Amino acid sequence: MADKPIVFVLNGPNLNMLGLREPEIYGADTLDDIADMLDDRARELGLELDIRQSNHEGHLVDWIQEANAKGAQAVLLNGGGFTHTSVAIHDAIRAVTVPVIEVHLSNPHQREEFRHHSYIGMAAKGTVAGFGAMSYRLALDAAAKL
Amino acid sequence: MADKPIVFVLNGPNLNMLGLREPEIYGADTLDDIADMLDDRARELGLELDIRQSNHEGHLVDWIQEANAKGAQAVLLNGGGFTHTSVAIHDAIRAVTVPVIEVHLSNPHQREEFRHHSYIGMAAKGTVAGFGAMSYRLALDAAAKL
Amino acid sequence: MADKPIVFVLNGPNLNMLGLREPEIYGADTLDDIADMLDDRARELGLELDIRQSNHEGHLVDWIQEANAKGAQAVLLNGGGFTHTSVAIHDAIRAVTVPVIEVHLSNPHQREEFRHHSYIGMAAKGTVAGFGAMSYRLALDAAAKL
Amino acid sequence: MADKPIVFVLNGPNLNMLGLREPEIYGADTLDDIADMLDDRARELGLELDIRQSNHEGHLVDWIQEANAKGAQAVLLNGGGFTHTSVAIHDAIRAVTVPVIEVHLSNPHQREEFRHHSYIGMAAKGTVAGFGAMSYRLALDAAAKL
Amino acid sequence: MADKPIVFVLNGPNLNMLGLREPEIYGADTLDDIADMLDDRARELGLELDIRQSNHEGHLVDWIQEANAKGAQAVLLNGGGFTHTSVAIHDAIRAVTVPVIEVHLSNPHQREEFRHHSYIGMAAKGTVAGFGAMSYRLALDAAAKL
Amino acid sequence: MADKPIVFVLNGPNLNMLGLREPEIYGADTLDDIADMLDDRARELGLELDIRQSNHEGHLVDWIQEANAKGAQAVLLNGGGFTHTSVAIHDAIRAVTVPVIEVHLSNPHQREEFRHHSYIGMAAKGTVAGFGAMSYRLALDAAAKL
Amino acid sequence: MADKPIVFVLNGPNLNMLGLREPEIYGADTLDDIADMLDDRARELGLELDIRQSNHEGHLVDWIQEANAKGAQAVLLNGGGFTHTSVAIHDAIRAVTVPVIEVHLSNPHQREEFRHHSYIGMAAKGTVAGFGAMSYRLALDAAAKL
Amino acid sequence: MADKPIVFVLNGPNLNMLGLREPEIYGADTLDDIADMLDDRARELGLELDIRQSNHEGHLVDWIQEANAKGAQAVLLNGGGFTHTSVAIHDAIRAVTVPVIEVHLSNPHQREEFRHHSYIGMAAKGTVAGFGAMSYRLALDAAAKL
Amino acid sequence: MADKPIVFVLNGPNLNMLGLREPEIYGADTLDDIADMLDDRARELGLELDIRQSNHEGHLVDWIQEANAKGAQAVLLNGGGFTHTSVAIHDAIRAVTVPVIEVHLSNPHQREEFRHHSYIGMAAKGTVAGFGAMSYRLALDAAAKL
Amino acid sequence: MADKPIVFVLNGPNLNMLGLREPEIYGADTLDDIADMLDDRARELGLELDIRQSNHEGHLVDWIQEANAKGAQAVLLNGGGFTHTSVAIHDAIRAVTVPVIEVHLSNPHQREEFRHHSYIGMAAKGTVAGFGAMSYRLALDAAAKL
Amino acid sequence: MADKPIVFVLNGPNLNMLGLREPEIYGADTLDDIADMLDDRARELGLELDIRQSNHEGHLVDWIQEANAKGAQAVLLNGGGFTHTSVAIHDAIRAVTVPVIEVHLSNPHQREEFRHHSYIGMAAKGTVAGFGAMSYRLALDAAAKL
Amino acid sequence: MADKPIVFVLNGPNLNMLGLREPEIYGADTLDDIADMLDDRARELGLELDIRQSNHEGHLVDWIQEANAKGAQAVLLNGGGFTHTSVAIHDAIRAVTVPVIEVHLSNPHQREEFRHHSYIGMAAKGTVAGFGAMSYRLALDAAAKL
Repeated sequence: MADKPIVFVLNGPNLNMLGLREPEIYGADTLDDIADMLDDRARELGLELDIRQSNHEGHLVDWIQEANAKGAQAVLLNGGGFTHTSVAIHDAIRAVTVPVIEVHLSNPHQREEFRHHSYIGMAAKGTVAGFGAMSYRLALDAAAKL
Repeated sequence: MADKPIVFVLNGPNLNMLGLREPEIYGADTLDDIADMLDDRARELGLELDIRQSNHEGHLVDWIQEANAKGAQAVLLNGGGFTHTSVAIHDAIRAVTVPVIEVHLSNPHQREEFRHHSYIGMAAKGTVAGFGAMSYRLALDAAAKL
Repeated sequence: MADKPIVFVLNGPNLNMLGLREPEIYGADTLDDIADMLDDRARELGLELDIRQSNHEGHLVDWIQEANAKGAQAVLLNGGGFTHTSVAIHDAIRAVTVPVIEVHLSNPHQREEFRHHSYIGMAAKGTVAGFGAMSYRLALDAAAKL
Repeated sequence: MADKPIVFVLNGPNLNMLGLREPEIYGADTLDDIADMLDDRARELGLELDIRQSNHEGHLVDWIQEANAKGAQAVLLNGGGFTHTSVAIHDAIRAVTVPVIEVHLSNPHQREEFRHHSYIGMAAKGTVAGFGAMSYRLALDAAAKL
Repeated sequence: MADKPIVFVLNGPNLNMLGLREPEIYGADTLDDIADMLDDRARELGLELDIRQSNHEGHLVDWIQEANAKGAQAVLLNGGGFTHTSVAIHDAIRAVTVPVIEVHLSNPHQREEFRHHSYIGMAAKGTVAGFGAMSYRLALDAAAKL
Repeated sequence: MADKPIVFVLNGPNLNMLGLREPEIYGADTLDDIADMLDDRARELGLELDIRQSNHEGHLVDWIQEANAKGAQAVLLNGGGFTHTSVAIHDAIRAVTVPVIEVHLSNPHQREEFRHHSYIGMAAKGTVAGFGAMSYRLALDAAAKL
Repeated sequence: MADKPIVFVLNGPNLNMLGLREPEIYGADTLDDIADMLDDRARELGLELDIRQSNHEGHLVDWIQEANAKGAQAVLLNGGGFTHTSVAIHDAIRAVTVPVIEVHLSNPHQREEFRHHSYIGMAAKGTVAGFGAMSYRLALDAAAKL
Repeated sequence: MADKPIVFVLNGPNLNMLGLREPEIYGADTLDDIADMLDDRARELGLELDIRQSNHEGHLVDWIQEANAKGAQAVLLNGGGFTHTSVAIHDAIRAVTVPVIEVHLSNPHQREEFRHHSYIGMAAKGTVAGFGAMSYRLALDAAAKL
Repeated sequence: MADKPIVFVLNGPNLNMLGLREPEIYGADTLDDIADMLDDRARELGLELDIRQSNHEGHLVDWIQEANAKGAQAVLLNGGGFTHTSVAIHDAIRAVTVPVIEVHLSNPHQREEFRHHSYIGMAAKGTVAGFGAMSYRLALDAAAKL
Repeated sequence: MADKPIVFVLNGPNLNMLGLREPEIYGADTLDDIADMLDDRARELGLELDIRQSNHEGHLVDWIQEANAKGAQAVLLNGGGFTHTSVAIHDAIRAVTVPVIEVHLSNPHQREEFRHHSYIGMAAKGTVAGFGAMSYRLALDAAAKL
Repeated sequence: MADKPIVFVLNGPNLNMLGLREPEIYGADTLDDIADMLDDRARELGLELDIRQSNHEGHLVDWIQEANAKGAQAVLLNGGGFTHTSVAIHDAIRAVTVPVIEVHLSNPHQREEFRHHSYIGMAAKGTVAGFGAMSYRLALDAAAKL
Repeated sequence: MADKPIVFVLNGPNLNMLGLREPEIYGADTLDDIADMLDDRARELGLELDIRQSNHEGHLVDWIQEANAKGAQAVLLNGGGFTHTSVAIHDAIRAVTVPVIEVHLSNPHQREEFRHHSYIGMAAKGTVAGFGAMSYRLALDAAAKL
């Protein structure tokens, strides 16, 4: 049954380590666990998901452009460490019309000073941060209504 | 029918001007419109709401303490301009055990430099920003699951 | 004979100490002396004045909104120490259509570094500073012509 | 037996939470415990105390002015979070002749960077910090000899 | 009929472009329009004006010294771009006894960050800014009473 | 007729979006339009071009090294968002002997503060910025004479 | 035969020292050498040139205004040391409609930190820097097509 | 009569000049006067004092270590100018278990900006500042109760 | 003969240019020369090496994760220009348990200001810098004993 | 008797006000008094002086070039307020071979923060500051021996 | 058997507290333990050691000069807290020809911000940090090959 | 013939290395050469000299106090690296009445950024810098006339 609106869920560097990496910060869920949870929710919302992860900044730029070219409903973007350093991703978001929602598992403002600045946040539609895996779900709910 | 868990929805300075004030930034909904929408959602979630607004920093501190003393499920806090300047509210959030969720209608990172820093975000459980009135609704959904 | 245009003259923290407080900086006039002088001038200009003082930031926000709601001609605002720290008052000025004129007895640029920045000035129509009690009178003359 | 010199003991935001709030930083004593201890010491010193707490910046400004108007011997001031942000309280201290002593339970220099700056310290007679409830007692001893 | 007190009205770089230059910021009046308006007002106040404009920082320094040597009543000084960069003009103001009043058509605090600092303001008696051509008139009224 | 000197024209992230992306900043030409124009000009100058685009910082580093290894006449480099953040590209330019010319369609100094710093400019032979597609042509003319 | 479009070539402080001054930075050409080369090129382009140099900031402001008043095609501006300090020249550029092109012999980003900021660049149409005398020629080619 | 707990009173550079040096800042008491006063108080408290002064940073580090090795009850430390610059003393305090109390005659926050930062305060148990010679006495009282 | 502990030696951007690039800074050894030297030393230490180089930040993140997944003894990491800019690599190091040792041929503190900050150093076990190719050998000796 | 080596003594803005201007900072000598004293000393040293003053930055640049063109022995330069702001004068000094000695009557490091930085000092041979009129005489003695 | 090359091992403030001081940061080895380990290693390398410790910055400067005067092979320098503050030691290293190697037990980049800057690192040959006592041994191995 | 006024010539760290250390910066004269030259000049001026050098900050503080106690005519102080870091020496200068003259061989403003700030200059009577050994002689001449 084609033609459901598609939402890209793009994950930046080290998010493939979820569940293994500093669980006191990022929680025990793996990225696959989150994907399963999101797929369930997407089905309820009548959305299709395209969930990806890369440690390469360029892939995130490529994929934001691809999402736009494919007429996606929205992009959920957890930029990981690129959040704080990537003007390229910032520019990608501004270069497209598909709305991009910034997602974080933890609350960057409670961590090191260098995580308080967000190039992604400066370009994104909005931000959901600090709720663990639920951050993705809330962002998906927001995407469904854009 | 008492005993539903209660969620405080606290609004800081100038949020009583919603709908009138810079609608290109804050949208056309009044605070009452948002309250109605939230009450509907709260009913679905089995929650009771206590929605307040003040232009006084001290009231927000008082109310965060009151929410904690009353065993509230969560506090949704849109600190308005105090977001960027109030160590007192920051300390209030850290002094209580009730989880506090930061809410913004607009995305502060897209606005002036002085709105990029958040004393509330440095203490809050999480943040939902940039989705207009829907920011409150998403935060309420999050609160329901804490 | 009702219906004269009204101008709010709002004074922030410690301005009730005028005449007592550091007279080498602020001069010997009390706030009542200034009020009398302004009332005389207002009569000449066909204006009515509503002169208030508070040490509470929230009151200044409340009163700016009230002045707007009452269709005031203008607000003269001496924010005292809040001038340099209050995003809430800054937002209040931007949230209303009534023009707000920043007033200072002394010239903040001749004082400590932390008094060189003005959140009020960043939002106000204009500024009159450094002329002692005459700063208010000049601002009132300006208000009469807005 | 009237006419004992009076010392105001003014406490800023969240100090009503003492004993509950982050006891590893602030200790287990409540504000009432401290008040009792101070009252005992005041009696020994032949002083009367007026102990107050507020979460409102404006009240602290009001009370500093009131202490001055009533000819108090001194003000002990624990400004809480306002310590680092309030030009209004700074100005209040400079606008009065009653000596103001800055008090802190913990040592702000051992905490976050934003607690290293003190607008109150820039105007106060002196500072006692880091000794828990004993900070107040030492400050009271100092006040007795001013 | 000699011997009326004289007020110098000194205008810095690009103010000869008034009316042509960015009218959304500076208004539609030319410098001649302002001169005419000021001359009318000066006559009412019993003052003589000496209105000049230069794009050369050195002329402004020369003229401030000349105004002082001629025993002028006051100097109105719109330093244009030199406002933010000229220590030489700052020193000139401090080197003379004639009072200097800073004037701006627009409100520099609402413009770029580099216009928020004023070397002229740090030395001047006072400032009138943001009222368009009326800024000059208010400053002249102030000068009449110094 | 082989052996014409070759010039690499390297384009960084999001430049494949030209013509689509924020045309009020970047103009209506696509990267293909620019390539066609440049090829025409190269023919007149007796140069061969190798025009590439990538969203990956690493490719730009690879290609600068490749241009050097192939004895290119020059590299024209529009680093896009990497201009402001990439020490790796800065180092690549310094590690090679082929001259690199920085190119920008828009004038970065007229945009956000974070675009005023250029790691590429700190290592490049020279810069041409602000002339839209003509920036490339001017840089190619410069390259022809190096 | 008159009536060729005119381009002003304005040179700031110390550019009269070219050829003598730090040739390892600025090259061996004198300003006259550059003028000759530019005149040749202007003839090819059907342009007339008006080449000037001054050590006075005010002259540069005057001349930018004059170029505008005379309906010049463009201004090439090498501001020398004023590039980094002159808000007055910045304002002059913004006050006129004639396009101004920033020119530098050397690449300021490879020199001292204080040469990385350009008030001229913040207002100019575009920039050509780092190609020695050829910077002027490229800028002239650009001017011919504006 | 051995065995009274010992308190080290360590004084840094220029404190041997007390009474001579800038008495409007530091008061008229010499270091010997303060020593006499402290000895009296120590006797009341059942403490023995070891009062020293040096202009050598290294001696202060040595002595803090010595106080610790000798099982002192506490160290009162007036670091003078080293307060603001000495990471070595900061580290010494953190390397020992004996509690160190920072003492100042004047209130550093009322003096130059470079005196607002305290490496000693960042490591010390607490601070007493601004009460002249009484600062030492209050600190000794605090030491008696540690 | 499998089963020797493996050490990854990861090299960032432009390190493939070693021997060619700025030999006065980086020395005359190529990366292959260093690899040979390291292989000899590894044999003595009973270690196996996996030496890689990439100009892509993402590869370094991938490889750090791979080293961890393969149970490597340690990672030697010369991040090149990413050292100073990559939060992603910083996070990768913190996300794994394999110890990472920062290596530099030159001493970054003797070079430009922007090379003094190290995101890799903030997460790494330790650093060896400034000894040319010997930096790698020392780091390998350290890795052998971890 | 021609042919004595010549020393230029160049004075920047407001130095023509010496003796009148803030005598507590600059002393009671006028510039003519200093000139007389210097002429006497020059005669002893076998030097001729050319003493000038201007409020125009451009004149100082012109004169430094002129001194160089005339083969002067040295330039004594009191740049006044331009000391802290003029890159143009800095460049002039670096563009000539005649040695330039920075002179100040007062000690700029004891004055406002913005007087601590010296663009002239960054280019000059040396500095003599703080000795009032004697600063010029010492600089002249130094010039005699260069 | 004289004439073995000598290596100075200089230790700054508080390093005599090793083993006692914050063992979670600095490890359990005392300075004597490290000396024994280093002596063993020196014997293998055919080196003689001169190991010293002082809390006095001046001694470190003296000793660096002494090592140079005695023709030492190298200096290993753990500057402790002086690392971050001592221009005098920085200058000493630059004033001598003996190579100086910076050593740290812990990794300063993982500690407080003020430990990220190293005046010693800015002058030293190289750095070994973060390997506990092994840092010294690796540095000694490096010294043997200089 | 006793009783000649005495001038202390105090030299800070590494000045005993003069003639050996970086002669391109500090010249070829040793400190003894300078002492001989100064002694000759002192004899002419009727002054006695007390010339000392130390690498210990504390000695410089001690000696400034000693010079004052002995009624010295002046102190010439070349603080070496302590110039930029020592609040203790700054305070020593302010604590005495003997005038202190800052001396430097080289011109610190032409060297690294961290040498542009001078704690000694902020307290000293005046400064002579950049003339090599002649800096001392000029300062001595100045001292003779204080």
